[in-house]
Order: sequence, then structure tokens, then C-alpha cells
Amino acid sequence: MSELRKDPIIGRWVIIAPERGKRPLDFNATQPSASPKTPPLTCPFCEGNESITPPEIYALRQPPSTPNGKNWLVRVVPNKFPALAIEGNLDKRGKGLYDEMHGIGAHEIIIETPQHFASFTPLPDEHIQHILTTYQARMQDLKKDTRFVFGLVFKNVGDRAGASLEHSHSQLVVTPIVPIRILGEIGGAQHFHNYRGRCIFCDIIHQEIDDNERIVINDEHFIAVCPFAPRFPFETWILPKQHLTHFETTPSDLIPDLSHITKQVFLKLEKALNNPAYNMLIHTTPFTMDSPEYYHWHIEIIPRITRVAGFEWGTGFYINSVPPEDAAKYLQGVK
Amino acid sequence: MSELRKDPIIGRWVIIAPERGKRPLDFNATQPSASPKTPPLTCPFCEGNESITPPEIYALRQPPSTPNGKNWLVRVVPNKFPALAIEGNLDKRGKGLYDEMHGIGAHEIIIETPQHFASFTPLPDEHIQHILTTYQARMQDLKKDTRFVFGLVFKNVGDRAGASLEHSHSQLVVTPIVPIRILGEIGGAQHFHNYRGRCIFCDIIHQEIDDNERIVINDEHFIAVCPFAPRFPFETWILPKQHLTHFETTPSDLIPDLSHITKQVFLKLEKALNNPAYNMLIHTTPFTMDSPEYYHWHIEIIPRITRVAGFEWGTGFYINSVPPEDAAKYLQGVK
Repeated sequence: MSELRKDPIIGRWVIIAPERGKRPLDFNATQPSASPKTPPLTCPFCEGNESITPPEIYALRQPPSTPNGKNWLVRVVPNKFPALAIEGNLDKRGKGLYDEMHGIGAHEIIIETPQHFASFTPLPDEHIQHILTTYQARMQDLKKDTRFVFGLVFKNVGDRAGASLEHSHSQLVVTPIVPIRILGEIGGAQHFHNYRGRCIFCDIIHQEIDDNERIVINDEHFIAVCPFAPRFPFETWILPKQHLTHFETTPSDLIPDLSHITKQVFLKLEKALNNPAYNMLIHTTPFTMDSPEYYHWHIEIIPRITRVAGFEWGTGFYINSVPPEDAAKYLQGVK
Repeated sequence: MSELRKDPIIGRWVIIAPERGKRPLDFNATQPSASPKTPPLTCPFCEGNESITPPEIYALRQPPSTPNGKNWLVRVVPNKFPALAIEGNLDKRGKGLYDEMHGIGAHEIIIETPQHFASFTPLPDEHIQHILTTYQARMQDLKKDTRFVFGLVFKNVGDRAGASLEHSHSQLVVTPIVPIRILGEIGGAQHFHNYRGRCIFCDIIHQEIDDNERIVINDEHFIAVCPFAPRFPFETWILPKQHLTHFETTPSDLIPDLSHITKQVFLKLEKALNNPAYNMLIHTTPFTMDSPEYYHWHIEIIPRITRVAGFEWGTGFYINSVPPEDAAKYLQGVK
């Protein structure tokens, strides 16, 4: 079982998840740096290959169909090599200065399409709605477990972004700890709210609309912007315009609009950057918090076209050579 | 000129440094992902090619020699493409919610050897002392400038770690803002000190010696350990055993020992991981703080043998498949 361990200085948790049978020398740097792409014939995520994955946890299916058979639209399975295990107790404990607990949590794969697409952009808007409502359903289910406090939906596309399988999929990791990155955002947003009595994300949306310099798409219910202080070239965020705290309880009548803007943003990024590697992630309020006035869910998209080096690791500063105004203007123009 | 911009939610600064003449499409992902290695003949860091770099700021030279001529041991030049500019004022200003200032600071290259080595480990200990005292001299000089509050020495080796030139070199970036990562460490260390009245780094050293599970090298004045909660496989820290706050004022009689342990740690990592890409960085107390009882300089070495993906970007959690106990045991055994 993996262990969660806390850095005592900075308070950051890490997951120590030894890969069974892998010895230190297996990390020898002459080995290929990434898993080879699985050829479509044996892709475990393709329709017809359902038996290669662990049994499904959830699926949107079309009749006639049976669990773990064909005829599905979106399918959720446990990660075959999970970072966190669903069974067991946390067994929180100290070791002198150090804190650790068992690596308990959920680690699921959302297979976004039965066909072997490398992106979800060829799918119709209606299918993307199915993907988004699947994220919601899985989070709704897992938040019932009182061991869990936070869920992150994310997507790695391309070797440089850490993807090991090409078939379009995303992941959901649910943790027993609110992650430091989320604590940082919540802390900042709380501080702002204490001082001004408003949600900082709502204020950002208003300022972005007023400034009109960093908007990629401005729809009725959602806005896509290149943020004012982006870490990476072409970093893009999607935010609901109304104050919504939890992604998983976003009203169903907004999902068609969210599907539409998400697909449009990715179409633009894929075209502008020629199918870049990227990470996408959804930042949402922890399960354990009701609907705070100060925190607002949003999607962050990080094209991985530059390297992160010693300066970034050492300082937490990022050097970005594309001003977000230029990136937004460029993406606006991409049809 | 570049701009420093602050993320209003999390308080992280980024440097927006547009590369002149580079248009968004130049980031097209079909281009090679890293700069090609400069062939030795035209390497700007090799002895004899001094005229290719900007004029030197500092050098350790052997007589007979003149600035920007041959016969040097270590040479410091401004970065040809600096992230921050040395001239100008900060012009701190707000734009609604957002904060920005001019990208003022220093960005220097420390060329570690006149010969074209890809690593500093072939150099004798005495030469590594010259490199370390050069770091100290440059930080001592730059901290006199009251615009600057923090200096980071770092080193990128290998394409995956963001290096664009092979010839062994390191960098010094001096910033007008204390970086968020350092603020995080200082905050954590201060909190610990308020509660227990001790330096957390000193306590970690004591516990590591007692536990004797994660030590790579334990010398008289310095210790190298794989930390309890490492983000990356084989992450290794080097710490002075006595409470030293500022790297740049480390007493000269400790520099031989520091050179020795640093070289030994890198020899082990290079051998264990077959010359991995890595980032090295020195975390030290900001210039503007006297000698705090709670903060302790240290070196962090991050082998870049795994990918950082959406989960890490989204949460600040890291998944590490090599327990530090295994990494330390393995490195101990490497001769």
C-alpha cells in the first residue's frame, strides 16, 4: 500500500507509491523516458477490449448492453496502478517530526469514448456532456465516503504531459487531505473575501470583461480567459460566470454550455499549437465545505510546450515568454 | 522589458518575458522541444570563445590573464537572454485587482570550468570550491543593491531539466520579491519555531541521524539525505549541520567540506541513474533578513527522471514511486 507523507517544513503531502518489483536501477536514465504508445489493437480503452481493464465502476450505456460489455458511451474503471487504494483506514500517525498515513483514496479512469480518438474534440457536444456529467456522478458518489475530502478531475494528453495511453481519457483522484494547492487558493480567496466581502473569482471575471484583453471566449454562462499571471504560454482558464462553488453540483441546464465552451477552447488550442501536450484540471471546493461565498470552481488548461527548470522549482516563480494578451488575441482569431 | 505579475488568488509571481520577434505560432508543438546542443567548437562557454558571451562580471583568473581573455577558472557573465533586467526601477503599480512591476533583477551565468565538461564531477575538489565561492561572491555583491531581496543559485543539467547548453554552468537569479516557495518554507519554519523554539532544519538533521534510514553521506560539517517526503525519486538534500542562515556568508573554512560532499553526492547520482537530467538549487535566507533562528540554508537536488502531470499541477501533491529509504540505501552503496 502507498503512504501519504507530509513535508514538515512546507506542509506539502506526497504519495510514496512503490511500484512492486521495480528496483532503483530501473530508473536508469538511458531507458526510454515515456511508456510507448499502445497500438490501437490492444488499447485497453477501446470498445471490445473491456475485459483488459478492471471491472467498471460506472458507465453510460446504450441498450442493449450489460456491464463490462460493448455499447457504452463513457466508462469508468479503477486505475490498474492506483496511486491511492480505496480499501482500508487512514491510520494517521507521527514519527518524531514527521506525519504519515496510509495512502487511502480513489483513483479512477474516465474513458471518454469507445473509439480510439486521441482527443475529445472530434466528439459531438452531446458526448462531451456525457463526459462532464460522468465526472459529476463519480464525485457525487465518492463524496459520500467520509474518509475523503477532495476530488481532482484531470487529464494528461501527450508524452510531455505525463500521458501513457493515447486513447482519450481523464482521471479522478479523491484524497483524504485537502491538497496544498487548493489550500493556497482557498486561503487567498478567503483573505480577499474577509477584506472586500466579495468572491475574488467573480471579481476577476468582471475585470476580464471590462479589460477585454485576455478573453478567449465569452459565452452566456461561461468565460474562457488567459489569466493575468499565467505560469505557462497559452494557459487558459474556463470559469462559470455565476458564483458556483462545487463542480459536481453545477446545474444540469448549464452542462450543454460548458461542453460547448470546453470543446471550442480545445479546438482553438489544438489548432493554434498543433495538438500540443497538455494538462487539464478542475479546481473545485472540498467536499467537506458547504458553499463558501469566496471560492469558485474553474478549469485550468496548461499546454506543456515549455520546460520547467531549476528556477521554477526553486522559487515557485514561472517565466512565461507569451503575454496572456497575445495568447488570447491569437486564440480568439483561430477558427 | 519583462514584467513581474502577481496571481491575485494564490499570490504567486510570474515573469512575463516576451521573446522579441517570437510569435505565438513559433510555439507550434511540431518544432523540436529543446534547443539543440551547441557543438563544442562554437560553445560560448569554452576557453577561447570569451568574445561570444557578454563581457564578464566576475572571474577567478590565473596570472597572466586579463578580463574576457583566456586563463580563467570560473567566469560569470550576464545571461544573454535575461529573465530580469539589471537596469531600471521597479515601478510597482496596480491595475484593478492585479499587481505588476517591471522585471528588474539580475540573471547571471556561472561558467564552472573553461573545459567542455557536461558535469562538474570530473573537476578536483579545489575547483568546486572556486565555483562555490563564486556563488558567494556574486550574492554578496548583489545583495548590496537595495532593490533586490532574494538570490537563487540553480543548475539545470540535461534537456528534460531545461538546460539549453551542455557546458557545465549554473545560474544566479536575484529578484525584487521573496519567491512564494521561499515564503512557504520560511512560514513553516517560523510556525515551528514559534511553537517549539527550535530550527526545524536542525531538528530534521537530528532526527535523520537518529533514524539512520535516509542518510546518503554523513560528514563532519554537512549531511546529505533523501528527505522524508520527497517529490521526486532520488531527490537529495545537502544541509550544513550547524545552524547557518545565509549561503553567501558560510565560513570559508567549511567550503572544502561542502565541495567534497557536493561532488560525492553528484558522483553517486550520476552513477546510480546513469547521468540523469537534474535541477540543483540552493535555498537560502532572503538578503533582507538578518540571521533568523528558524531558517537554515540547504541544497536541493532533483533528478528529472519522471514526468510531472495533471495531478501534481492540480494539487501540489507529488506521486513518488521510490521511497527515500530505498533511494538512500541504494546511493549509499554506490561507490
